[in-house]
Amino acid sequence: MADQPPLIDQHSHGAVHGELGLGSFEAHLAAAAGAHGPAPAGTSYFDSWTGLALRRWCPPLLGLEPHCPPARYLARRRELGAFRAGRMLLRGAGIGTFLLEAGTPSDLTSATELATAAEARAHEVVRLESLAEQVADTSGSVDSFIGYTAEALYAAAQHATAFASGAAYCDGHAPPAGEVRRAADRWLRGRRPGQRLAEPALVRHLLWSAMATGLPVQLHCPDPQPLAGFLRATAGIGADVVLLPGAPHHRRAAQLAAAFAHVYADTGPRPEETLGHAPFGKLLFSSGTRGLPELYVTGARLFVRALERVVREWTEEGMCGPGEGRRIAQMIGAGTARRVYRLPAAATG
Amino acid sequence: MADQPPLIDQHSHGAVHGELGLGSFEAHLAAAAGAHGPAPAGTSYFDSWTGLALRRWCPPLLGLEPHCPPARYLARRRELGAFRAGRMLLRGAGIGTFLLEAGTPSDLTSATELATAAEARAHEVVRLESLAEQVADTSGSVDSFIGYTAEALYAAAQHATAFASGAAYCDGHAPPAGEVRRAADRWLRGRRPGQRLAEPALVRHLLWSAMATGLPVQLHCPDPQPLAGFLRATAGIGADVVLLPGAPHHRRAAQLAAAFAHVYADTGPRPEETLGHAPFGKLLFSSGTRGLPELYVTGARLFVRALERVVREWTEEGMCGPGEGRRIAQMIGAGTARRVYRLPAAATG
Amino acid sequence: MADQPPLIDQHSHGAVHGELGLGSFEAHLAAAAGAHGPAPAGTSYFDSWTGLALRRWCPPLLGLEPHCPPARYLARRRELGAFRAGRMLLRGAGIGTFLLEAGTPSDLTSATELATAAEARAHEVVRLESLAEQVADTSGSVDSFIGYTAEALYAAAQHATAFASGAAYCDGHAPPAGEVRRAADRWLRGRRPGQRLAEPALVRHLLWSAMATGLPVQLHCPDPQPLAGFLRATAGIGADVVLLPGAPHHRRAAQLAAAFAHVYADTGPRPEETLGHAPFGKLLFSSGTRGLPELYVTGARLFVRALERVVREWTEEGMCGPGEGRRIAQMIGAGTARRVYRLPAAATG
Repeated sequence: MADQPPLIDQHSHGAVHGELGLGSFEAHLAAAAGAHGPAPAGTSYFDSWTGLALRRWCPPLLGLEPHCPPARYLARRRELGAFRAGRMLLRGAGIGTFLLEAGTPSDLTSATELATAAEARAHEVVRLESLAEQVADTSGSVDSFIGYTAEALYAAAQHATAFASGAAYCDGHAPPAGEVRRAADRWLRGRRPGQRLAEPALVRHLLWSAMATGLPVQLHCPDPQPLAGFLRATAGIGADVVLLPGAPHHRRAAQLAAAFAHVYADTGPRPEETLGHAPFGKLLFSSGTRGLPELYVTGARLFVRALERVVREWTEEGMCGPGEGRRIAQMIGAGTARRVYRLPAAATG
Repeated sequence: MADQPPLIDQHSHGAVHGELGLGSFEAHLAAAAGAHGPAPAGTSYFDSWTGLALRRWCPPLLGLEPHCPPARYLARRRELGAFRAGRMLLRGAGIGTFLLEAGTPSDLTSATELATAAEARAHEVVRLESLAEQVADTSGSVDSFIGYTAEALYAAAQHATAFASGAAYCDGHAPPAGEVRRAADRWLRGRRPGQRLAEPALVRHLLWSAMATGLPVQLHCPDPQPLAGFLRATAGIGADVVLLPGAPHHRRAAQLAAAFAHVYADTGPRPEETLGHAPFGKLLFSSGTRGLPELYVTGARLFVRALERVVREWTEEGMCGPGEGRRIAQMIGAGTARRVYRLPAAATG
Repeated sequence: MADQPPLIDQHSHGAVHGELGLGSFEAHLAAAAGAHGPAPAGTSYFDSWTGLALRRWCPPLLGLEPHCPPARYLARRRELGAFRAGRMLLRGAGIGTFLLEAGTPSDLTSATELATAAEARAHEVVRLESLAEQVADTSGSVDSFIGYTAEALYAAAQHATAFASGAAYCDGHAPPAGEVRRAADRWLRGRRPGQRLAEPALVRHLLWSAMATGLPVQLHCPDPQPLAGFLRATAGIGADVVLLPGAPHHRRAAQLAAAFAHVYADTGPRPEETLGHAPFGKLLFSSGTRGLPELYVTGARLFVRALERVVREWTEEGMCGPGEGRRIAQMIGAGTARRVYRLPAAATG
């Protein structure tokens, strides 16, 4: 860890504000594991791989010994106050730059808040569905909605670092105007506050429009396979696509990143699953955090630990020299993100 | 192994009675690998991962050195007699409690026989399809079949430890009565002796009925994905579901166990594939044995070996303390099964 | 490596002739990773797992130190000339026998050329689609095409070592004659030069016809699952089938090899993914090379390295003795291929 320069975390949603009791803390830990609801009686989400990582790395950042009892950790957290504890955790995570997908839930930190709390840089990733929802709030007709969305996209492209889309499927053609109009009409009539845009033709229209701005587009894809046609068709357009796959599809995402020059794949905190399946320069780290600031710590440390293990092993058996291994680790941890998202060079130190 | 308390094997079908020649022994070993038929000339199922495990751990239980030639092992087995050899193997497997899915093939040990042979506890898991088949043998009409099945389910729930179902697909609603009646009618007319019940609507009806008893239900699911709707819909019902996935779906089963409080996942003898994907308290060991008593030994030892390796690694790099690691291993090996299946506390020693 | 006898590489397409500049060398490296097009600016296919392996093992075969800069390696390659460098690489790969799927691209070595260059044996695998394409070039009618194809298949079976097919799907029945005739008619009318035969019914007809010759058939199957019905139906026919799966389906292919006596599975250069899922005698090595002679080296060395790691681990923890481990490695690396393809015994030395 000593010589690991700060990571760039290419995808997260931000950290919660405010104090958390044992129940709400566990609920956030559960949500990070994909859980709907509390742990069954007699079990705890602290007893999980993420829980072990949290207990290993977070207590020392708050002045406690590793693996202290969860109750003691939470008491210390309350004693410091959520604001101060959050800052100590974020500053100790080893992340120098955050790409933040700003969303609608207002209980998570904004990019500016995150940058201040972590003493780091933070850049905004604009979720296309959120952008359209905001436009829809102030549009009177399908025509004005479609026009204003195009303008909003263009405006966002001037300051945002990337776009993000939740298109689960997209083929090789932008949907025709008529289909987009009908989808927009259907959605504008039926939408309810707080409901995420999920009209497939409209989501695909936004995705193709975003690609035209030239900004990188992050694609949330539980399974990347249904996007293969889209990836093939956008090879020459000039915008990069970064796949954010769900488990167990990281390997498939890496293969698609290997196949197309403009496609990249997120490794999450487990880079070892993808290393053999794409050139190292096509893989990028993210913590994927939404909620506990602790998850920035565990995501970053698990990533660094896994990569260090692999590189140590490679070095020991002569698959690469130590400098080479360090170079690869830095590429996946920060270098490639800096290039793809055109981020300023790292500060020294 | 020294300090490993006895395992609870949450799923198996029992061991064969009777003497086995080289041919029938290999046939059982082959079946354990999913094979239909004998090994091709020049090969042997002893040359497999399970075969290596058998040759490593079983000969010492019969007084031979590890890795002795298969012919010598089988000679020793015959010399002892199948009955005595079976007892020595079962008592040496390190399993203190068996959950046995009693089936129709009468050449496998019953729960009582297994308990005696292994000097262990054994509890019955009632396969829903078998229960319905038994009811069908004595029912005159669709109405009486459906009524008697409900009664038989209720009666079984008084003594059984869990139910098991082979429903490959199930959505969020119990099938309507008319559909169940039609499926029952079709099946009762067309069924032949020894044929397993496979009318989807009837199988789903049995599953929903079993859930209503509150007993845990084990779900055989080569692929657990088509059951996601059922799992979502049964979150509040009060009965636990334990997924028994086929390779390579153990990870997906673990993710579903992470997502729903009442869902658990079988690890089989390879816990390392699932550890990162569900809280440790949602994972349970099974050997999955059907046939050779040797497979209880290999299943249990491979499981313990794999868990010991992982825990040693975690401990060495500070991811957990040694006590923590032992606690996690015991949870997956026995503690969670004891809780989910409401089994009596382990005897001391 | 010292005591590893020469491997049998059961599947490759041959090495390129002629000099390669940095651009074309990288293009070949990219193609090996499944890439369509050059690496994005700032990245290189040398920075990949295959690239690392190449830089580890190829420079020493050309008299350079491992991990020398790519530019230096390519300069040395030019200095030696492609012909001489190719021979040095092929002779240093550790492969004693090649099974070569001869294809239409004329810029790859033939079996005879490969044998000479590598000072090894090389046997031809006849691709069924290519055979049909050659027949079609000289057939006047559907009838003559079908008749001549049968003759050509029979003639090929006299000298070839195996057939290969690209049937992505095949069920349990040979397609009826009428369907084959219609498919042949459609294809013969519409075919264009250089276009690979892809009429499903015709491809399946060729596959069933090839099975009837008794020669082993290699099945290219990105996903082997759609072939399960075919495998079940051909269990008694007398011809072996070797599955050549794409990632991530190696494990599924191994399971199918475990299930059917006449089915085998390719491991590619990563045997560790399949070892637990089929008897060791059902797994065979291949490099899968198409293009750079370097890929024979990396495929073979990665395979040997991975197997050595696994066997060392097994031996250390007593899962097998050292002799046993060596025997298993030799089985997967050469012995099984020798048996399945009825190859002459290895020369001594």
